[in-house]
Amino acid sequence: MTRVLGIDPGSIRTGFGIIDYEEGSCTLITSGVIELDEATAVSERLVNLSSDLEDLLSRHRVDEVALESLFFSVNAQSALKLGQARGVILLECARRNLPIHEYSPAQVKSSVCGSGRAKKEQIAQMVKVLLKIPAKKAFHTFDQADALALALTHSQMISLNRRLNGKLNIETEDARK
Amino acid sequence: MTRVLGIDPGSIRTGFGIIDYEEGSCTLITSGVIELDEATAVSERLVNLSSDLEDLLSRHRVDEVALESLFFSVNAQSALKLGQARGVILLECARRNLPIHEYSPAQVKSSVCGSGRAKKEQIAQMVKVLLKIPAKKAFHTFDQADALALALTHSQMISLNRRLNGKLNIETEDARK
Repeated sequence: MTRVLGIDPGSIRTGFGIIDYEEGSCTLITSGVIELDEATAVSERLVNLSSDLEDLLSRHRVDEVALESLFFSVNAQSALKLGQARGVILLECARRNLPIHEYSPAQVKSSVCGSGRAKKEQIAQMVKVLLKIPAKKAFHTFDQADALALALTHSQMISLNRRLNGKLNIETEDARK
Repeated sequence: MTRVLGIDPGSIRTGFGIIDYEEGSCTLITSGVIELDEATAVSERLVNLSSDLEDLLSRHRVDEVALESLFFSVNAQSALKLGQARGVILLECARRNLPIHEYSPAQVKSSVCGSGRAKKEQIAQMVKVLLKIPAKKAFHTFDQADALALALTHSQMISLNRRLNGKLNIETEDARK
């Protein structure tokens, strides 16, 4: 069994989703959104993000992390803000020696919906189907569904890799540079 | 006496400079560059940055921090990488409840050299003059001189503010949003 944490980072809202993967089957453990107070200073928000993440990692013994890589159409100011949150997330995961795998939004869409151009609503719907979440149950925001989709994408990579009898070795350019 | 830490963050090289400010006079305490290994994963680099910074903050009892704000001509990928390092720096400083003040490169140039368009060499030269560093002594990189220039800029703001008998209240947009 491998416990995967998917994280969709943001400067205000960071989605998270934890699933257990075992022999082709995925089970939802928990998911939600770490929402930071826009009225507080950036540095204070980062302290809160770090402490909420620490809390989450302490409560659930995660084995691997799947993180959304940068969507390059954003501008420099947005990328900087996103980077600050990402830096804190990478730091907390690396401090616990958790392997971090990055997936682009297109990879996640392809993996979960079969199309790199799937819409947010379609991702949320497929996440519900794959994790047997009642269709009526609403996600807090799309960040929550996206985080679960990241965890599912990584589970599929583990599955594919095991079928190929290989060693899992998925590192994006960003993770190595 | 106020001990000011100036930080010029970067994804590979982060300059730092600590000075003591007292009644219009500045004294150099220490300065240098935290240089990260480009060959290691980003997450590992962030752990090293965090631990080097923790070490620096433990050895020198800093009162306030002056940080370079984003230079917006960079592209989204560079901004993300810079943001990740910045996130870790903001986190470590905020965890110690250190007040963080941000200054743009133009503000630093104006403050130290009298011109917002001063060159890197001019900043390094003025930093040496203001801190009585022998002209022959070379800086590790311009990041070191820039970090000291940030600390000097903040000292000038403290000085200006005290002369005006006001309470120091310098927050950039970025620090509040």
